[in-house]
Amino acid sequence: MSAANLSLPASQRQWLINGNPRGRALSVDDFALHQAPLAPLADGEVRMRVEYLSFDPSQKGQMENVSGYASGNDLGSVMPAGGVGEVVESRNAGVAVGSKVAGRPGWQEYAVLPRGAAQVLPDDGLLTAYLGPLGGTGLTAYFGLLRIGRPEPGDTVVVSGAAGAVGSIVGQIAKLMGCRTVGIAGGADKCAWLVDELGFDAAIDYKNDNVKAALRSLCADGIDVFFDNVGGPVLNDALACIAHGARVVVCGGISRYEQASLPPGPPNYFNIVFREATMQGFLLTRFEKEFPQARVRLRGWLESGAIAHREDIQQGFENIPQTLLRLFNGANFGKQLLRL
Amino acid sequence: MSAANLSLPASQRQWLINGNPRGRALSVDDFALHQAPLAPLADGEVRMRVEYLSFDPSQKGQMENVSGYASGNDLGSVMPAGGVGEVVESRNAGVAVGSKVAGRPGWQEYAVLPRGAAQVLPDDGLLTAYLGPLGGTGLTAYFGLLRIGRPEPGDTVVVSGAAGAVGSIVGQIAKLMGCRTVGIAGGADKCAWLVDELGFDAAIDYKNDNVKAALRSLCADGIDVFFDNVGGPVLNDALACIAHGARVVVCGGISRYEQASLPPGPPNYFNIVFREATMQGFLLTRFEKEFPQARVRLRGWLESGAIAHREDIQQGFENIPQTLLRLFNGANFGKQLLRL
Repeated sequence: MSAANLSLPASQRQWLINGNPRGRALSVDDFALHQAPLAPLADGEVRMRVEYLSFDPSQKGQMENVSGYASGNDLGSVMPAGGVGEVVESRNAGVAVGSKVAGRPGWQEYAVLPRGAAQVLPDDGLLTAYLGPLGGTGLTAYFGLLRIGRPEPGDTVVVSGAAGAVGSIVGQIAKLMGCRTVGIAGGADKCAWLVDELGFDAAIDYKNDNVKAALRSLCADGIDVFFDNVGGPVLNDALACIAHGARVVVCGGISRYEQASLPPGPPNYFNIVFREATMQGFLLTRFEKEFPQARVRLRGWLESGAIAHREDIQQGFENIPQTLLRLFNGANFGKQLLRL
Repeated sequence: MSAANLSLPASQRQWLINGNPRGRALSVDDFALHQAPLAPLADGEVRMRVEYLSFDPSQKGQMENVSGYASGNDLGSVMPAGGVGEVVESRNAGVAVGSKVAGRPGWQEYAVLPRGAAQVLPDDGLLTAYLGPLGGTGLTAYFGLLRIGRPEPGDTVVVSGAAGAVGSIVGQIAKLMGCRTVGIAGGADKCAWLVDELGFDAAIDYKNDNVKAALRSLCADGIDVFFDNVGGPVLNDALACIAHGARVVVCGGISRYEQASLPPGPPNYFNIVFREATMQGFLLTRFEKEFPQARVRLRGWLESGAIAHREDIQQGFENIPQTLLRLFNGANFGKQLLRL
C-alpha cells in the first residue's frame, strides 16, 4: 500500500476513439491524442505504467460495437487494449509496487486497474510472452484448436493466417497433438518460417499459390480441422477440401474486417452437409475457468522450446495507431506489440 | 419362397437418368422412358410391385454425383428413389409374397430388392406414412433436430421450408420438446396450416413478409435452433437473429439447387463467432443404428395425433418426372408422393 508516488507526472498521454470504422478501413484519424490528469487511486486499485501494448484484429470489431460482441467502446473513450507493465502505485495489498502485471490498460501511458484486473506476473523475464503465447493469443489458439477443433492424432490440420500470432501457435499445438499441419500465409518469408522454424509440414503462400489446388495436393484425404483466421476465398477453398466429419473453427475473418459492405459468405458452406462437417465460432471468455491449467501447459511448451513465437515490436507512444493498422495490411510478422 | 409369378408381365416401364442437371434447373428431359424385361430373381431377392414413390430434393443432388455425397447415379441407370409396394415374388424366406414393403425401388413398376433391402411393413394401413413421418423424412427431422439442433425446453426453434415434408415434422417435434416454434414457408395457405393445424406458434410468409424484420419481432431473445432446408437469403436472415450459443442445422438448401453457378454463402456466417454458434451438416445414414428406436417414438406420436402430416399425391407412372420438378418450384404442399 503506497501513498501517491511523487515521481509520477501530473498528466499523461492517451489515444481516444475518434471514429467508428464499421464498413471501411481503419485510419489513424480514428484516434485522437489527448492529455489527461492522472486520477487518484481508489481503494483496491493499482496504477500500471504501460510498457508494452498488444495489438489484435478484434480491436477493430470492438470499436464497431457489434451487437452481442462488444460494447462500451464509445467515441471519446480511451482505446481499449491489453498490455503489460509495472505497478507504480498501489492501493491493493496483493499487488506490490514494482510488480510486473498484465491487464487491459488501453492506449495510455498509465492505467488504473481495479481489484482483480491486474494479473501479477512471475519474475521470469517472459514479460511480453504474457501478451502472446501465455496471454489471450495463446489461450485463443489453445481452446480454439483443442476444444472447438478437437484434433485427433493423425488428423490433417490446416491453419489460415498461419504466420500470425494465433495461427502460429495453433499449428505448433496441432503438431504436439500428433497432427499433420499445413499453414496458409502471405509471402515466401512467412511460409519458410512456418516450415523451417515452427515445424509445419507444409505451407501455402496465398499470394502466389493456387490455394485450392495446393490444398487438394497437400491434403489428399481432406482437411480434418480447418482453423480460420481469414475468411473470404481462403475459407471457401478450405471448405472445398474438408474431410468427412471435419471441424471448421471460425476464429477470425481478417479479410472481411475492412470491407464497405458485408462480403458474401463462402459458397462452399453447403459442403458441411455432404461431408457432415461443423463450422463453429467461439469467444475466449467462455473458457475463462480453465485458463489457469491452459497457462500451465502453454508455459511448459514455451519453456521446453516445443513452441516458438515471434514478436513484431514497434516503438513509441505516438506510433500506436499506425501499429494497429499493420494487422490489416499483413505488414506484421509475428505477434504485433509496441513498446512505449 | 415362390417360383416365377405367372401373373407378372414380361417387361415393365422404367425412367432412366438422361441428363446431369448440375448447375441448372431439372427438366423432364433429364429422364428417358424405357421398356425392360423383368429380370429373374436370384437367391435372397424379392420383387416389389411399386405402389407409391417418394420424392425428395436430395434426388437432384444425387443425380449430380456430388463428390462425397452420392455416386452411381449414372446416365442410363434407373432413377433411384424410395417407395413402398407389395411383394409379388420372393426368393427370401423372410419376406412373404403379399407383404407390404418399403425400400428403394427407383422409378420403375417392378423392382428387385436384394436381401436386407426390403423393410417388411406391419399391416397397419399406414403404408405411405413409411415414406413420410415413419420413413427417411421423419428420421431426417428427428435426428436433425434432436441430435444436431439439440433443443432445450423453452428454446426458440425456427424452421425454414416449414410446410415441407421434413420441416413440418421438425416443427412438431420441437413443440413436443417444449420449444417455441416459428415456421418460414411460402404463401398464406401454408402459413395458416402451420399455425392452425400443426400448432406452430407463428409462421412467416417469405413471399410476402420481411423475413428478417419478422424474425426480430417474433424471436426477440434470438433463435436458439435454426433448422434450414432452404439456404439463400432466408438462412442469412436467420443468422442475423441467432441467439448466443445457437445451433444452425444445415439440412437442405433448396434455393441453391438449381442455380447456374454456386451461389454465395450467407454474409452473416461470421455471426457464429460473435454469438458462439455452430453450423452443422449431417446425412441421415450416420444415425442408422438408432433408426428402430426413433421409429418407435415417431409411430407413437403419429398414432396419438401429436404429429400430423400432409401428403401431396400425384398419379400415374408417366407423370413421375414432372412430379419431382414440383419440389423445386414450391408447388408441393406436404410430402410429395406419386401413386403408380
